[in-house]
Amino acid sequence: MKFLVIGGDAAGMSAASRAKRNDKNMEVTVLERSHDVSYSACGMPYNIAMPDRAIEDLVVRQALVFREKQGIDLLTGHEATAIDPAAKKVFGTTDQGASFEMAYDRLLIATGGSAMVPDLPGFDLPGVMVLKSLDDGRRLKAYMEERGVRRVVIVGMGYIGLEMCDALVERSVAVEMIKPGKGFLSWLGEPLSDVVQQEVESKGVKLHIGCEVHRIEKQKNGLAVICDLGQLEADMVLVAIGLSPNSDMAGAAGLELSVKNSIAVDRTLKTSHDDIYAAGDCADAYHVVTGEKTFIPLALRANRAGWAVADNILGARVELDGVAGTAVFKVFDLEVARTGLFPREAQRAGFDPVEVVIESRSRAHAHPGARPIHVRMIGDRKTGRLLGAQMVGKEGVAHRINAAAVALHNHMTVAAFAQTDLAYAPPFGPVWDPLLTAATQLLKKIG
Amino acid sequence: MKFLVIGGDAAGMSAASRAKRNDKNMEVTVLERSHDVSYSACGMPYNIAMPDRAIEDLVVRQALVFREKQGIDLLTGHEATAIDPAAKKVFGTTDQGASFEMAYDRLLIATGGSAMVPDLPGFDLPGVMVLKSLDDGRRLKAYMEERGVRRVVIVGMGYIGLEMCDALVERSVAVEMIKPGKGFLSWLGEPLSDVVQQEVESKGVKLHIGCEVHRIEKQKNGLAVICDLGQLEADMVLVAIGLSPNSDMAGAAGLELSVKNSIAVDRTLKTSHDDIYAAGDCADAYHVVTGEKTFIPLALRANRAGWAVADNILGARVELDGVAGTAVFKVFDLEVARTGLFPREAQRAGFDPVEVVIESRSRAHAHPGARPIHVRMIGDRKTGRLLGAQMVGKEGVAHRINAAAVALHNHMTVAAFAQTDLAYAPPFGPVWDPLLTAATQLLKKIG
Repeated sequence: MKFLVIGGDAAGMSAASRAKRNDKNMEVTVLERSHDVSYSACGMPYNIAMPDRAIEDLVVRQALVFREKQGIDLLTGHEATAIDPAAKKVFGTTDQGASFEMAYDRLLIATGGSAMVPDLPGFDLPGVMVLKSLDDGRRLKAYMEERGVRRVVIVGMGYIGLEMCDALVERSVAVEMIKPGKGFLSWLGEPLSDVVQQEVESKGVKLHIGCEVHRIEKQKNGLAVICDLGQLEADMVLVAIGLSPNSDMAGAAGLELSVKNSIAVDRTLKTSHDDIYAAGDCADAYHVVTGEKTFIPLALRANRAGWAVADNILGARVELDGVAGTAVFKVFDLEVARTGLFPREAQRAGFDPVEVVIESRSRAHAHPGARPIHVRMIGDRKTGRLLGAQMVGKEGVAHRINAAAVALHNHMTVAAFAQTDLAYAPPFGPVWDPLLTAATQLLKKIG
Repeated sequence: MKFLVIGGDAAGMSAASRAKRNDKNMEVTVLERSHDVSYSACGMPYNIAMPDRAIEDLVVRQALVFREKQGIDLLTGHEATAIDPAAKKVFGTTDQGASFEMAYDRLLIATGGSAMVPDLPGFDLPGVMVLKSLDDGRRLKAYMEERGVRRVVIVGMGYIGLEMCDALVERSVAVEMIKPGKGFLSWLGEPLSDVVQQEVESKGVKLHIGCEVHRIEKQKNGLAVICDLGQLEADMVLVAIGLSPNSDMAGAAGLELSVKNSIAVDRTLKTSHDDIYAAGDCADAYHVVTGEKTFIPLALRANRAGWAVADNILGARVELDGVAGTAVFKVFDLEVARTGLFPREAQRAGFDPVEVVIESRSRAHAHPGARPIHVRMIGDRKTGRLLGAQMVGKEGVAHRINAAAVALHNHMTVAAFAQTDLAYAPPFGPVWDPLLTAATQLLKKIG
């Protein structure tokens, strides 16, 4: 069987490796338009924080290993441009200008996503950067070195923007961040968002919230971001306003698209066409809380989906449960974590959300070094179900959120979750875990 | 209604406080034999590590607050000695030598547990200590100061022994630990137990494993623990071999006893007698994995059970789900956590346990500072159910275990758990959380 994979990062290489490992006779070919495969994109902000580290440190497995040790026909510099599902062929061009076509029995589209860039003047100027591919990171890091970047404006205040803000401050770069609309991390709700905002501002970062960007202009000594406030001067501008799925080719081939133009897949990762799968940042997923389709492109799902595609092509029938929207990021000394739905998402999905915000602490009464932990928890008034949780704190947040995530997979009620037997020892939390305190308070509101 | 509580620590004071808060007209009386109420017993090793901290720092709420602000009739120095369930009366004596009797409508027995002491010569000598009540801690701490304790032998290698070992080494005390039987932390399984053993030994602690203690003798300059090896000299001996429930009075009153002589309670915390409840370290609980009775005395359960008793007395019908046996402790730089069953317990409960041990790491590929995380996971070959997990590592263990605990409450299969959407960011773990890696490996063994 010929298994063709378009895209050589998390989903694509996971699928290719597993397929070949489990069936030595399978012909596995991967088309990757860049020359980087299998790298930790999420590690880029941390790598960028360290000028003496090569960006290639983030490569998990070299192309050579896939080719020589694993027997995968990995073609880098090969960009797929069109799919013909009827003929079971993929067409494309190499970065040497040659065109190619490839036949397949089963195809996996793992084309990932692209950093969104506003359609405004000046966003194509040199020094205006995004951060999605390893090449983006390489370019950004080189630019910082070459130009001696001291001032950066970050457009957007999402987690990549914040991770990069942290990395740049670590390098003593002066950072300003700008976004339109109300609120800083509005999805976190005000109390938790305020905690993060204070942390970021305490590091000397200037936040311009509710401020529209109009264009970017080139100046004698760098760039100027023209906005409602006037202009913000910078040596480099980082655009971090979100990710859109690379689904144009799939759409053009007639495959069904879904939320935010991601490629629609069923629980086996199959697209609307029988021989074609999609996985990773280009594909949608079921949300375990709503049961509906969602687009939450994250690394774990990409890897897991890659494996599931391989298993399904090999004849197993693996169905993925879906995503809970669990995520965590670090910004300066804070851990910020989430799982499940925010109140607005919950409402949209037909729930009657009720929320509670509590402050607890990271260690027991009288144990030295305790830090505040802030928890927002959301439940459904109608069914009593737990719908989501968000947490912010300087320690003990990143892994704590997983307990709530597992509860969401099981459609637990807040009452049942409040009864779970969570670990306690004085260095690690109060007797009542912050999540249990939140659940107990939320129960009173649900009534 | 007259609500009488025997025992003024976690379970007793939780129940008393909640009952009075929710029904101002209830007459709530608490009999506490010591003069300490509502303290964090679990915090004692950490307090003992700090010579300049008073043991009273561990008091969560003063007796005065319960009496004057909360309106609870809190009688310290009052030891209950007998219960007459037919007459609905409790009898006892005060530490002034007076006898008393009290009538009740509802009674809560929250008498806690006692540190077990072997029935061997010399265990009653001055300088032979246990650590259960605040008074034990007070006595131990004072003894250390007065005698300038420099050498301690700890009998037992459970978590209290290990936490105390850490605390004593912190105070530059030379520590030897001794236990009979095979293995160090045999319940952890060898690979994980070895990791902890190496950590403890690396701090200069001498471990005498498989070594029987015969007696303790007084010497000119302290004590000698006479054992298979000869004798271990010490200024102080700490006995930490486990806890037994204080259930004699309940037994004498004809109440049904259960596992390890704990007081049998149903899911509403009611004993075999309608008007009498029991909660905390003296009572049993249902295990959420086996559905059977178990005796796992821990702080969270005690607090939760106290609340549930109050709610039930007030006319609600609160049933507790049970315990998963989730626990964590810190020993030197290691976090050691567990939830659910060990293979031997699983076998005894009728499961067909299969286990896997994996090593993962606490941070992502290429992220600086990653430490090993060791996971043992146990599943049932027959049903595919997750039965338990244990973890050891220098970071990222304490809260991670909670995800597995919540899975156990939901009777998840290993396959379903392996699909959960757990948080990922490079500073906090690999893309595949160590628990997911363990689950994936365990699945292969379950087949």
